[in-house]
This record gives sequence, C-alpha cells and structure tokens, in this order.
Amino acid sequence: MSADSVRGQDGRTTRRFALDLNMPSPPQAEFATYLGLCAQLYSGALPEYGFMVRNKTPFLFDLDGTLIDSVYQHVLAWQSSLDAEGIPLSVWRIHRKIGMSGGLFANILLRETGFDNTPERLERLRIRHAEAYKGLSASVYPLPGARELLAYLTAQGMPWAIATSGRMETAGHHLAALGVDPNKVPVVTRDQVKYAKPDPDLFLTAAERLGVDIRESLVLGDSIWDMIAAQRARALGVGLLSGGYGEDELARAGAFRVYADPADLLDHIDEVAARS
Amino acid sequence: MSADSVRGQDGRTTRRFALDLNMPSPPQAEFATYLGLCAQLYSGALPEYGFMVRNKTPFLFDLDGTLIDSVYQHVLAWQSSLDAEGIPLSVWRIHRKIGMSGGLFANILLRETGFDNTPERLERLRIRHAEAYKGLSASVYPLPGARELLAYLTAQGMPWAIATSGRMETAGHHLAALGVDPNKVPVVTRDQVKYAKPDPDLFLTAAERLGVDIRESLVLGDSIWDMIAAQRARALGVGLLSGGYGEDELARAGAFRVYADPADLLDHIDEVAARS
Repeated sequence: MSADSVRGQDGRTTRRFALDLNMPSPPQAEFATYLGLCAQLYSGALPEYGFMVRNKTPFLFDLDGTLIDSVYQHVLAWQSSLDAEGIPLSVWRIHRKIGMSGGLFANILLRETGFDNTPERLERLRIRHAEAYKGLSASVYPLPGARELLAYLTAQGMPWAIATSGRMETAGHHLAALGVDPNKVPVVTRDQVKYAKPDPDLFLTAAERLGVDIRESLVLGDSIWDMIAAQRARALGVGLLSGGYGEDELARAGAFRVYADPADLLDHIDEVAARS
Repeated sequence: MSADSVRGQDGRTTRRFALDLNMPSPPQAEFATYLGLCAQLYSGALPEYGFMVRNKTPFLFDLDGTLIDSVYQHVLAWQSSLDAEGIPLSVWRIHRKIGMSGGLFANILLRETGFDNTPERLERLRIRHAEAYKGLSASVYPLPGARELLAYLTAQGMPWAIATSGRMETAGHHLAALGVDPNKVPVVTRDQVKYAKPDPDLFLTAAERLGVDIRESLVLGDSIWDMIAAQRARALGVGLLSGGYGEDELARAGAFRVYADPADLLDHIDEVAARS
C-alpha cells in the first residue's frame, strides 16, 4: 500500500491511499495499517479522504482507427460527400477532423470554408458520407491485434467498453467483425449521448455503464479528439498510430503513451494497465 | 557580402563568399572588397574557393501530396491492390510509405510482411494500383495555392521543376490540371532515373535540367522520403502537411521549415527564398 497527499482547490489537504485489493496474501503489517486507516476514516479522525484502489484497469476504446482500420475510407467518403456539395477541402484537413462527432465535424468544416450549415445541407452531407463509406467498406478490416487484445482483457477479467462518435447503424457491422456482442459489452454510440468527441460524454457514459471510475480508466484512441476527450473526462489517454496521426500530434493532445496499433499495445500492456 | 571558411575532406580550407548580386546599389566599401577578391581569385592569390551567389532560389517540387491532392487516393489504391494479392496491411502503414518509388515501396512492404517479391507479383501490384487509382482519381484536384505558387515563381523568374516518384503516364493528367507544360518546365519522372526517392537522383536530375546548383535549391515535399532525398542531395527540404504527415515527422526527417500547403508556402515565401 502507498499513500500521498494532494491539496485541493478549496485549500484542504486530501490524503490518498492506494491499496492492491487483488494481492493474494497481503503482508500482515500492511494489512494492519489498512485496518487502522479504515478505523480512522469511519471514526472521522481523518477529515477528508480520497481512495485510490489499485484495481483492474478499465479500458475505454474508440472504434474507427483504434480497433477497426476504417479511417482512410471515412476520409475519402467525407471528401466525396463534400465534393458533391461543391465544397472544396483538402483531404488531409478532412483526415485531421475524423473522430469527431459527424455533425460537429460538418459544422466546423462548413464554418471554416464559409458555407452555410443549413439542416438540409448537413443531412445531405451525412447521407452521402454514409453511402460513399458503404461503397468503400468492403476493404475495411479489424486492425492487427484488435480481437486478441479484447480477448486478453476479457480473459483477465479487466473491464472494457467501446465509445464511438459513429452511429450504431455503421458500428454494428464493425462490432460483428470484431466478435463484439453489444448485448454483453457496453457500446456507447453517438445516438446515446448529447455531445460526441471531443466532449467527454461518450467516455463518461462508457465508464458509468461499466460501473467504474473514469479517473481510473484508460481511453484508447487514434485521434487527437479521443485524447482531448480523455483529458476532459480526467481519464488517461493512450494513443494509437493506426488512424494515421503522427506520434507527436497524439502526445501533444495528451496521450501519455503511444503505440502503433492494438497488437503493439497488447505486447506492451504491462506499461499502462494494472492486472489482477 | 559575407564570408566564411570550410574545411574539405581533402584537408584543404575553402574560403566562401556570399554576395547579393541583386542588390540595387552595393555600398562602395563592399564593392571594393568584392573587386579586390576577384582580383585575388584571378591572380591565383587564393588557392581554392567556393562561391555562393545569393541568387534566385530554385524550387524543386514533388508532385503527389505537394501540388496535387492525391495521396489518400493513392493510399487506398495500394490497399486495394495489396488486398487483391491477399497481403494484409494496415492502411496507415501504406500511407507512411507513399512517395517512395512504387517498386521500392512494394519491395519493402513485401519484405516486411514476409511475402515473396517475385517480378510477376510486383507487376500485378503495380497494375492493380494503377487501375484502382484511376477509379478514385475523379476526386483528385490541385492543392490550394498550387497553381498560384507556380505562377508566382514563373513571374519572378525563379527557376522551378517537378521531380516525382510517379510515372509520366499518371503524372501527365495531373500536370495538365496544374497548367504545367512538360515541354517548357523540367519534369523528372520515375522512368528517367535509376533510383527514385528516398534516393536523391530525382532532385539531382531536376537541378541539372534547370542548370542550377542542388546545394542552392529548395526541395518542396509532403513526405519524409522527399525530406530524406533532399538531405542526401544536399538541398534544403521544405515540408508541406498536405500529404497527411504530422509536422514533427517532417521536421525530424530534415524539413527546415513546414507549411500547411502551397497556399501557405506562397504566403510565407520570403522566409525561405531569395528573390530578385
């Protein structure tokens, strides 16, 4: 067990204790200390406390670009949709916006390019993107190691969920490819929250569904919007290069660690996750 | 005028003088120094010399991702070609290889994935990529500012050329979209050199065709292969984000300056180029 002190904004000091509840046979002295602290807490001898349990780390996954190799198809589908609307936009600029809520994405692009964002235009953009993506999605596969990583977490009893800015109608097909049953695993889609990424709502809802503390969770994502949402939710962000961002872009957006893809993350999982 | 000394591999010291020949009215003292140096040079009083003339900066351009917004279509065309061959490869890994010679690109990917690189397979990959790219190229346009930048250089009398790892059959269509006549402007394609990027041959040949010194030239490119080739050729590399690499990736590959796209470069051209 370890302990430290943090000073809150209200000026009061909080004493935090971290205890590995999964330790098979805690040393007697440590266990005695723990019982003593519990007694103090319940008796009110400690005025305020935070309690960090070293438990199995929850994994909150983005979907496109993180578990599924679909970013580049989404990019060209958006370009095709914008092109049909007469909106010229460089493809790399579309790429750097992918992972946001589709509505927010279109809003921002229309604002940047000076086009009106009427509801009719937004709806046409959404529909044409979905059509174009369908035409390109025959070549969309799970990323290397994605299925293995999820299977490992399940086998270890580590809680995990998926939180995507996409809608269930698109996500459903990809979940099947990953072998994920949304009736057994929490899958939070854009339809289920008010604001998608870079707002923290998707990841906060995923943590709630798992019954875990977001502040103890990892957010795994390929885009800077995942990393920003992770920070806003007070989770730790882990970046993957598999969406085509550079390592430095992810690190500057708050990724505390960056791996190539799910396979690379699985190879190095002890760097970021507490096991039982 | 400025001067410095460099020591060559043969151990002899070279004194280099940089003089702005375009200066409208050089101060008398500087001009006298210049005449004195000329006299010394011609009389043999200076045993060896290098001469850096501050002249109009030559621009050597990459094509795809630098002047033409075609990288993402090339990426998915390669994925389609590799997929047809049964070679699974994440799309972002293909992206990070684009800009290399197509043959070298396929060689490296086959080596990395453990597939045999038979001549037949390489030929099938090349043909299928070209077919798939054709199917996606209806949405390929010049990048913002590309035509304006080339027109500006021409108007200023600044020498420029294009050096691409692509072949003339693909490049021709894009050159027309840019308004570039390969009979008037040097265009070096993969067919014309032994080794494409990241070897320096394409840029060296472009400088030769222009009759300029590669060591006084800028190489403008969107990929790390352009920047590496620039360094190997002893040119200065200027990176553009329009191919989808991150700024840091380009800087680490040797870009001494990075801009968003040709329009952004044109806005800041005085930072990198000497004018008349």
